[in-house]
Amino acid sequence: MSLQVTVLGCHSATPRVNAHPTSQYLEINNRHFLIDCGEGTQRQLRKYKIGFSKINHIFISHLHGDHFFGLIGLIATFGILNREKELHIYGPKGIKEITVLQLKLTKSWTRYAIVFHELTSKESELIFEDDKVTVHTIPLNHRVYTNGFLFKEKEKPRKLHIGNIELYDGEINTADYHHIKAGKDITLSTGEIVPNSELIIDPPKPKSYAFCSDTAYKPAIVPIIKNVDLLYHEATFLKDREDLCDKTKHSTAEQAGNIAKLANVKKLIIGHYSSRYANIQDFKDEAQTVFENVELAKAGEQYSYKN
Amino acid sequence: MSLQVTVLGCHSATPRVNAHPTSQYLEINNRHFLIDCGEGTQRQLRKYKIGFSKINHIFISHLHGDHFFGLIGLIATFGILNREKELHIYGPKGIKEITVLQLKLTKSWTRYAIVFHELTSKESELIFEDDKVTVHTIPLNHRVYTNGFLFKEKEKPRKLHIGNIELYDGEINTADYHHIKAGKDITLSTGEIVPNSELIIDPPKPKSYAFCSDTAYKPAIVPIIKNVDLLYHEATFLKDREDLCDKTKHSTAEQAGNIAKLANVKKLIIGHYSSRYANIQDFKDEAQTVFENVELAKAGEQYSYKN
Repeated sequence: MSLQVTVLGCHSATPRVNAHPTSQYLEINNRHFLIDCGEGTQRQLRKYKIGFSKINHIFISHLHGDHFFGLIGLIATFGILNREKELHIYGPKGIKEITVLQLKLTKSWTRYAIVFHELTSKESELIFEDDKVTVHTIPLNHRVYTNGFLFKEKEKPRKLHIGNIELYDGEINTADYHHIKAGKDITLSTGEIVPNSELIIDPPKPKSYAFCSDTAYKPAIVPIIKNVDLLYHEATFLKDREDLCDKTKHSTAEQAGNIAKLANVKKLIIGHYSSRYANIQDFKDEAQTVFENVELAKAGEQYSYKN
Repeated sequence: MSLQVTVLGCHSATPRVNAHPTSQYLEINNRHFLIDCGEGTQRQLRKYKIGFSKINHIFISHLHGDHFFGLIGLIATFGILNREKELHIYGPKGIKEITVLQLKLTKSWTRYAIVFHELTSKESELIFEDDKVTVHTIPLNHRVYTNGFLFKEKEKPRKLHIGNIELYDGEINTADYHHIKAGKDITLSTGEIVPNSELIIDPPKPKSYAFCSDTAYKPAIVPIIKNVDLLYHEATFLKDREDLCDKTKHSTAEQAGNIAKLANVKKLIIGHYSSRYANIQDFKDEAQTVFENVELAKAGEQYSYKN
């Protein structure tokens, strides 16, 4: 089981020389996802040597430029690179219309299929599932319709502890295996009961990642993201400008810390900093007044969990 | 009179870490124009410290991504920067529809006015004129409707050569000035004729710049760009792959050199290099087989003419 987030950009509003708008590359259980795609994302992918061909699913949180203006360029580049595999795009209603119009006007119809999954629900919903991973939306509160995304590994099946089973020297045989896998204790011919926990190896705990950008403070998401290993939550302002949060539907660093604490996450990453702040470290300090394990997102930085 | 081109990007197809798609910033006679706007142009403007607020006119050659995918991001950033001045956009029909749809979906209507000048003519036409500069289209031959742009300074009025006039010690007076400005010789009371050329200062020769990207070899543009000071002409391939030029409607370096020679330009800049070539210098060498004064476009490079 493994989870690795690579931050491609984590600043708000306008791209600057060393401040790239939101995008992240997520590897989870051998699946490869792109989350948001601000202008310049394809350049950032190249900079950090991430293979374009691995990306089959792109999740767009909302239709503000700093989260999706790089999408059409990436789609066009996939075409130039002779992509053949289907590309799945998950995002707010409208994302298909805008993409299709651009492909039409540029006469750049792709040879690969693009499958749009347009989102409209205000409730959390399952939007991706395969044998290894699920993705649910996290409805957020922003100026336009916005979702975060919760990525979860699926639990692997329990394994027989063959070493321990063999200690019973033929008393436990293959006919019992499906009972053991089902969680049952085994009664030997002597009447001794062998507890199931001795005969089974529990799978590693599945990892989970919650991406929340952009949003006003919304404690209602806490049950959805409860106990995740890693939470990315935007923190555009410090609490000295909480008034701007109300107006623009963003969060302070303290509010991001509060969500992390309420949801009992293992680690919080914050980003989407407003350019008005010269010292990014202040965001970490403020979040840490309520939640200890905080890191500042930085382009090129990777956050990994393995077991 | 002055003309300065700053290359912001000059590579073809897909943005890479150090290969930016087409965009140029042109200062001509104290006017400031942006020509094409590939993805990442606004980052390049910041990198080369070009003030966003100076740009009031943007010229888009054609609707391929490497020439305009950065436009919507720049428009959005102008809004974030509280722009109030009108912005004029000149480009192929469709550019308004795509821009308006994106502004609508992102709920980012600008407070400043955007005036679209959609182009459809296959003949060269005057698309901009004020007291200092004119801009004409240069119809090109590409896979989609494409124009280059010819930027010309207007000639300044002729000035009286007061120093020389005064030498005639009252023999020439202010009543003669309008005759001198109109080009007439002056007959003194002695019968001596003073030739007009002694009494007038000719204005500096107006500068001109022709931007031609992308296009198949098209000698028909030669009369339009005849004698310009500076010609930018794409050179995507070398002549070893002239077959690709036919297919994709691009030019070789030699063809760009031929256009420069036929048009008798002072200097040729080439760019829009295909990524298949490792050594860009080969483009210069090939163009110089037919035209000597060639430079390779490079991001950040400036080409200036003053007099």
